[in-house]
Amino acid sequence: MYSVDLNSDLGESFGVYRLGNDEQILDIVTSANIACGFHAGDPSTMKKTVRMALDKGTAIGAHPGLPDRCGFGRREMAITPQEAFDMVIYQIGALAAFVKAEGGRMQHVKPHGALYNMAAVGRALSEAIAEAVYRIDPELILFGLAGSELIKAGEKLGLRTASEVFADRTYQQDGTLTPRSREDAFIHDPEQAAAQVIRMVKEGKVRSRQGTDVPLTAQTICIHGDGPRALQLSRRIRQLLISAGISIQPPGEG
Amino acid sequence: MYSVDLNSDLGESFGVYRLGNDEQILDIVTSANIACGFHAGDPSTMKKTVRMALDKGTAIGAHPGLPDRCGFGRREMAITPQEAFDMVIYQIGALAAFVKAEGGRMQHVKPHGALYNMAAVGRALSEAIAEAVYRIDPELILFGLAGSELIKAGEKLGLRTASEVFADRTYQQDGTLTPRSREDAFIHDPEQAAAQVIRMVKEGKVRSRQGTDVPLTAQTICIHGDGPRALQLSRRIRQLLISAGISIQPPGEG
Amino acid sequence: MYSVDLNSDLGESFGVYRLGNDEQILDIVTSANIACGFHAGDPSTMKKTVRMALDKGTAIGAHPGLPDRCGFGRREMAITPQEAFDMVIYQIGALAAFVKAEGGRMQHVKPHGALYNMAAVGRALSEAIAEAVYRIDPELILFGLAGSELIKAGEKLGLRTASEVFADRTYQQDGTLTPRSREDAFIHDPEQAAAQVIRMVKEGKVRSRQGTDVPLTAQTICIHGDGPRALQLSRRIRQLLISAGISIQPPGEG
Amino acid sequence: MYSVDLNSDLGESFGVYRLGNDEQILDIVTSANIACGFHAGDPSTMKKTVRMALDKGTAIGAHPGLPDRCGFGRREMAITPQEAFDMVIYQIGALAAFVKAEGGRMQHVKPHGALYNMAAVGRALSEAIAEAVYRIDPELILFGLAGSELIKAGEKLGLRTASEVFADRTYQQDGTLTPRSREDAFIHDPEQAAAQVIRMVKEGKVRSRQGTDVPLTAQTICIHGDGPRALQLSRRIRQLLISAGISIQPPGEG
Repeated sequence: MYSVDLNSDLGESFGVYRLGNDEQILDIVTSANIACGFHAGDPSTMKKTVRMALDKGTAIGAHPGLPDRCGFGRREMAITPQEAFDMVIYQIGALAAFVKAEGGRMQHVKPHGALYNMAAVGRALSEAIAEAVYRIDPELILFGLAGSELIKAGEKLGLRTASEVFADRTYQQDGTLTPRSREDAFIHDPEQAAAQVIRMVKEGKVRSRQGTDVPLTAQTICIHGDGPRALQLSRRIRQLLISAGISIQPPGEG
Repeated sequence: MYSVDLNSDLGESFGVYRLGNDEQILDIVTSANIACGFHAGDPSTMKKTVRMALDKGTAIGAHPGLPDRCGFGRREMAITPQEAFDMVIYQIGALAAFVKAEGGRMQHVKPHGALYNMAAVGRALSEAIAEAVYRIDPELILFGLAGSELIKAGEKLGLRTASEVFADRTYQQDGTLTPRSREDAFIHDPEQAAAQVIRMVKEGKVRSRQGTDVPLTAQTICIHGDGPRALQLSRRIRQLLISAGISIQPPGEG
Repeated sequence: MYSVDLNSDLGESFGVYRLGNDEQILDIVTSANIACGFHAGDPSTMKKTVRMALDKGTAIGAHPGLPDRCGFGRREMAITPQEAFDMVIYQIGALAAFVKAEGGRMQHVKPHGALYNMAAVGRALSEAIAEAVYRIDPELILFGLAGSELIKAGEKLGLRTASEVFADRTYQQDGTLTPRSREDAFIHDPEQAAAQVIRMVKEGKVRSRQGTDVPLTAQTICIHGDGPRALQLSRRIRQLLISAGISIQPPGEG
Repeated sequence: MYSVDLNSDLGESFGVYRLGNDEQILDIVTSANIACGFHAGDPSTMKKTVRMALDKGTAIGAHPGLPDRCGFGRREMAITPQEAFDMVIYQIGALAAFVKAEGGRMQHVKPHGALYNMAAVGRALSEAIAEAVYRIDPELILFGLAGSELIKAGEKLGLRTASEVFADRTYQQDGTLTPRSREDAFIHDPEQAAAQVIRMVKEGKVRSRQGTDVPLTAQTICIHGDGPRALQLSRRIRQLLISAGISIQPPGEG
């Protein structure tokens, strides 16, 4: 019996600014990565999003990012591993307090944007992040790019990890994602996107842009809810996974 | 046997900016109120300050403030009780994560600056803050101005509270502090400051500026460590309290 | 020949967050108040908005606010007149640089949100703001609530001022706006809103909520562009003003 | 007749946080680079620093940095040239407003920290910064590392430039500074530091760490005022330059 998790970034509103379709995406995913107030989100948004996720029964994770609200945490910053440790502790703690205050339990941690990308290839940075997660709660599951340094750092510490894959992105023959600057970086057709992730889950392989097969562990799939088309794509992928006999469930379950 | 707690605000450095004499003040006080990154402090400062307090055996508290770094949390802001609840949850959680990561336990929460002052007189705001503390951990001790709405809100919820008094400030006949704008608001002489708090602790009274005695509960004394004179004053008060047979210990102890 | 200015707040987007319908509202108004990066806006948004306003021929003004991005500058803060002076200088300067870099000229300054409201009733604060405007450029026009301290402070300094009125808000018999908390604070019917401002412009009077007439100078009308309904209301008011023989033009013209 | 400018970073205080010895350093330097509120400084600090520089007759420059207050603008960030253009316009404008309000004139612009370092080697970034300076005022002088892309970008646009050298840093044979991580990166002896800059000014050469002579244009020397030792070193260098017959004057003069 195959199973996979669907995750999405939530709680990205800030003050008067609304972003995303959190309520609808919560009906599709099994894990919610909630922004922690550095790259997006604020205390009130965090509380509402945690409450909504608990009401819908979606597993909750912290989504710490770089302290760059204007750049939405997408611009790489030359932070030290020590600084990464500190800012990840801070953000997980802030979200954990809302989860506790609302009577829930945190399942996972997934770094955001540039922090995620930097951790994918940076060993020292990844070890600092994994250590921060471990020090707060060794039961937390660390989400990271499949095959990344972050997944390795988590495993080395004895943390449970969830290897993340992308439905709507193409891969290169070395297992990395095709850079967003290339036209063929994205998959827009839901059937093709679903076929790619179904093969990842069932066979542990993805067909690279260069035509070769690349081995890959797929435990959680990143989907998006910003805009009606993204929501529709996400719903369709979920249906096709279920039709293919794949159970959709959070990694912390069972 | 009389006892009282000595508390001070710590961890107020930020980035390259140094503030306070945290190491020296930790040898004097029994409770450390650590800034949580809104009005002062940052993740790295929080971690170092928590570590130092644990090493010195000083009890740790969260010191949440208003989101006004440039004004050091001293400018009143028209926030709603709901916003206060959210920002207090966030900040306590962030500090709690460092305490947990360093292997300690949080003892108390004391609001900072304008938030402290607004809570002293605002019932709805105080109830929101007390509720936030309670929801995170009902064992936390809530520090507030003696006789304030914040102390009342904490008691109403069943929280342990610590009524705070000031050694270096004069009181008015209604039990409030003399406004800082008045010349006679401050007590500069260590003997006089110590005599005031010794009487507060032993007799539960303070002589007001107007010459009348005002009843007052004194469970924790706020002292300062910014500048050599403040440090010296704080050390002298501590000595005089001990000489007067008053035991210096955190409220969470015994 | 009657004339009046229509103004609206623009450039309120921030980073990835979109707010308002700047392009459409620029076709309706004659003066654009552009956020300066404290309560809303950021350097890139400011540049684009300035460019767009110049292309459409709309007069440009700085819209300085309180340093409270999460509260959108709507929460009152206890700042000193000196701090107000400094933060207004800073924000006007930042916007002025984009106007200069794009080859334009700044027409006016209108404080935002809580700063606007505090200045309406605070003399010292208003004098500080007016002085800041004057020191940067005595040709700038100061926008403020009709009858407010801000208008008086501007006039006292010899600045040109523009008394602002609201089409979609009701007034009280003392000339102030009905508080937003009351149900009858807003006028939703375009015809009624237009009738109110037409009478303000032509007769210098408004019928108060209590039924009495209140004298009032109406030189600029604040309209909104957030949401399709607001846009539609704004367009309709403009049409009705023109039908009533009122010329729509910025105060800096003619 | 030889001449050179001495410049230093000023106005780096923030809120309650004090940094640097602005008053003393203003007696030593001829050009003051004033922080603009992104990496350091705030509106009130900017105004006071501008006022003080004008009173002392020191030439004023804007010192724009990355939006990273916690990292003091020293952490590289992956900003686009367009973003750099926008944030430089914003910051120069903000400072220019204080200079105008205080009745002065801005002489120059010098990027700070990581922005300076990134501009030293990045052509597109440098062109964006130079363009921003030019668009605000083509009379402004652009300060940059001697031999850097920033100096080249300024010259290409027709801006006046000032090539900056360091008294207390050693150089490598390719003309770049020895990285701070190496022990021999710094020169602590005032006589040796002065000798290095005297030779740079008079002969246009510096002896590299590897022993070879490197050609170098020295129009302005960066000195520091943080700490008594730095102040003393700076004073001594100034004396030795004058003793060597070198006139100390800002580049905008004569």
